[in-house]
Amino acid sequence: MSVATAASRQPQTAAETDPQTLGWMQGFPPPQDKTITFQDGSFRSFPELRWAWSNVRQLVPTVNVWRGPGPASVLPREDHDIGASASVTMDGRPITFARMLEETYADGIAVLHRGRLIYERYFGALKPHKPHIAMSVTKSFTGTLAGILVAEGKIDPQAPIIEYVPELKASAFGDARVHEAMDMTTGLQYTEVYTDKNSDVWGLRRANGMAPIPEGYQGATTIFDFLCAQKKQGEHGKAFAYKTVNSDVLAWICRRASGMTLSDLLSERIWTPMGAEEDAHYHVDRVGTESGGGGLSTTLRDLARFGETIRNHGRFNGRQIAPAAVVEDIARGGDVEKFKPAGYTTLPGASYRNQWWVSHNAHGAYMARGVHGQGIYIDPKAELVIARYASHPMAGNAANDPVTLPAYMALAKDLIAGG
Amino acid sequence: MSVATAASRQPQTAAETDPQTLGWMQGFPPPQDKTITFQDGSFRSFPELRWAWSNVRQLVPTVNVWRGPGPASVLPREDHDIGASASVTMDGRPITFARMLEETYADGIAVLHRGRLIYERYFGALKPHKPHIAMSVTKSFTGTLAGILVAEGKIDPQAPIIEYVPELKASAFGDARVHEAMDMTTGLQYTEVYTDKNSDVWGLRRANGMAPIPEGYQGATTIFDFLCAQKKQGEHGKAFAYKTVNSDVLAWICRRASGMTLSDLLSERIWTPMGAEEDAHYHVDRVGTESGGGGLSTTLRDLARFGETIRNHGRFNGRQIAPAAVVEDIARGGDVEKFKPAGYTTLPGASYRNQWWVSHNAHGAYMARGVHGQGIYIDPKAELVIARYASHPMAGNAANDPVTLPAYMALAKDLIAGG
Repeated sequence: MSVATAASRQPQTAAETDPQTLGWMQGFPPPQDKTITFQDGSFRSFPELRWAWSNVRQLVPTVNVWRGPGPASVLPREDHDIGASASVTMDGRPITFARMLEETYADGIAVLHRGRLIYERYFGALKPHKPHIAMSVTKSFTGTLAGILVAEGKIDPQAPIIEYVPELKASAFGDARVHEAMDMTTGLQYTEVYTDKNSDVWGLRRANGMAPIPEGYQGATTIFDFLCAQKKQGEHGKAFAYKTVNSDVLAWICRRASGMTLSDLLSERIWTPMGAEEDAHYHVDRVGTESGGGGLSTTLRDLARFGETIRNHGRFNGRQIAPAAVVEDIARGGDVEKFKPAGYTTLPGASYRNQWWVSHNAHGAYMARGVHGQGIYIDPKAELVIARYASHPMAGNAANDPVTLPAYMALAKDLIAGG
Repeated sequence: MSVATAASRQPQTAAETDPQTLGWMQGFPPPQDKTITFQDGSFRSFPELRWAWSNVRQLVPTVNVWRGPGPASVLPREDHDIGASASVTMDGRPITFARMLEETYADGIAVLHRGRLIYERYFGALKPHKPHIAMSVTKSFTGTLAGILVAEGKIDPQAPIIEYVPELKASAFGDARVHEAMDMTTGLQYTEVYTDKNSDVWGLRRANGMAPIPEGYQGATTIFDFLCAQKKQGEHGKAFAYKTVNSDVLAWICRRASGMTLSDLLSERIWTPMGAEEDAHYHVDRVGTESGGGGLSTTLRDLARFGETIRNHGRFNGRQIAPAAVVEDIARGGDVEKFKPAGYTTLPGASYRNQWWVSHNAHGAYMARGVHGQGIYIDPKAELVIARYASHPMAGNAANDPVTLPAYMALAKDLIAGG
């Protein structure tokens, strides 16, 4: 643990925790108090994670998502400095777009307006060609792939999950249907409290390879084993509850339905046709299974390309990558009533549909969201896509939303007004 | 361990151990007896390694060697089926080039004649876009990078090693010079016997991340710590002794002299200007240090590009990548008298120079060589480059050489005769 972390209780600012300035992992070897390892768990501490989220591959095993042999697709550039775009945070503070980025520990931001890259900035340890972990934005890739397989008739959303994965028979998913995993309306004992080391999400992280396994650990050490051990609580289909195991179950269904690994499926269906600039990668568990709930790393520009593909009803790089119906179904959103009881105060009136968050706001915006501030924000009315990687000290997006969401809406209005 | 391995003492043939046919790591999850993991050490067993050497990234942490943003350089293709090229093995058996590949468990072979790709074949788990581990062929990259830094005046081969790495003062390298690490003429206690699990090379593998660390292990868990613990035996500069720690020391010197990680240095000096087709990667230890002695993985075509760069006196893709003098110094070879006592019966009259093996045969051929049959073979007279990845059951190249080396010479003669 760093001296800086120990010295203060208040999280330090983005400038104070810049990994480059602090000298994390610099030198051969880096000084001991500037060394970040997987084994000692320091990669998950703040400010160490500001380096780690841009260097996941160096910490854990991964599998490549090949970009194919072709050239990268063109992202037309039309610089427009939106840094001064003004908004008011949910707690009433005036703030600029640039200051919002700083306050929310952005590692990079790419803004597309009508398909043109108008604003692109990198901070911290991120560089244009380096992949950054997308955390739960990964889920929206899994959902989109599942949607494509549904459109192809390879997955039936109404079918029981065990039709694809009989191994889940004795688990909580034994009597659930595919669409309940897609929309996270399964009834599960599993808890996802990032700040509680006893919460089940930490068991999932040990199983999927993103947390060290203590000596003598008796829990599951693979994703599939972890999923098979999940217990039911309550009823399926009644209410939205954000639980990552649903995404990993959906990823398992995608593999069985396609006969492909998740990485090959993403490469073939999206990464290659989209003309990604760089290979992406998933971190994998001990038997090579990708974390479909949080393990994807991509470059920022490729995240923006994916966002633009979705905004364009699945069309990008001169081809239809996902059927328009798949995207329209997501944009239309899920059941607002089932979402309400979850109590997301920063997302009033929202819903969750096929691994995407749908705001149902005046612009019909919808989002892919991941812990520590990862996100894709799509505003159809403003023809706006915001791709963002970050290393916020807090995992939960409740720490980001009050500052980021008003800034996104203000920018959208500026762009509409500006024509 | 697989049933196949347990069932027979005689290594099975390449066809019998094809990882695809055997179903290694296929299915979600793969069946238990077809699962290969890092933790249980199975990735190092035969035939499991036939899958593992093409999937290192899925087993251990790695760091990327970026290919840069430009297009891949063109490898002009002129198909010429040399599979029937005939030779006689060192023990007197007639054999064809194609049969030689099978007998030596080739995963892939790319043959360049006068810069044209005349023959390219893939077997086992390898595919054109997938990186395969180069094992000690990695050393020849380290040596070439060191040579470039020497030419730039950033490394003085006559200087004491501790001028660059003072941390090595109390180690065997404390009174050695840079050129002694380059040419592997240091006097060290360290042993490198692949078949003996008590040999020091296994300690190096635990330290560099390519062997699991048993509970309670007291040895070094990083490359740098392992190097600092090496003890002297005999005198420096007297005789060649193939010991991987020299390459890791040389890599450490390169980092200090350039101020760059080995991966960034390789990306900037070779991978990007060469127009590599895919990113390469190194496996890394627990603090992110690349294995400069054996950790590089590349695609077969990129290995061929590098070989052609060297054959062309450092020139490739329209630019001078390494100074011609660096390559000519390697091709000229090292001290044959210092090499002789090492007793390589398959390499009579050879020498070792700056991490390359020089045959001093009639064609002036020289090589990069790695365990389990990895290699680059450069025949200047025949204007021939052979890049080869393999997964031979035996680590030592004494198992390959009697079959491969005569086949390479016969092919060279065929090509010269064919004009």
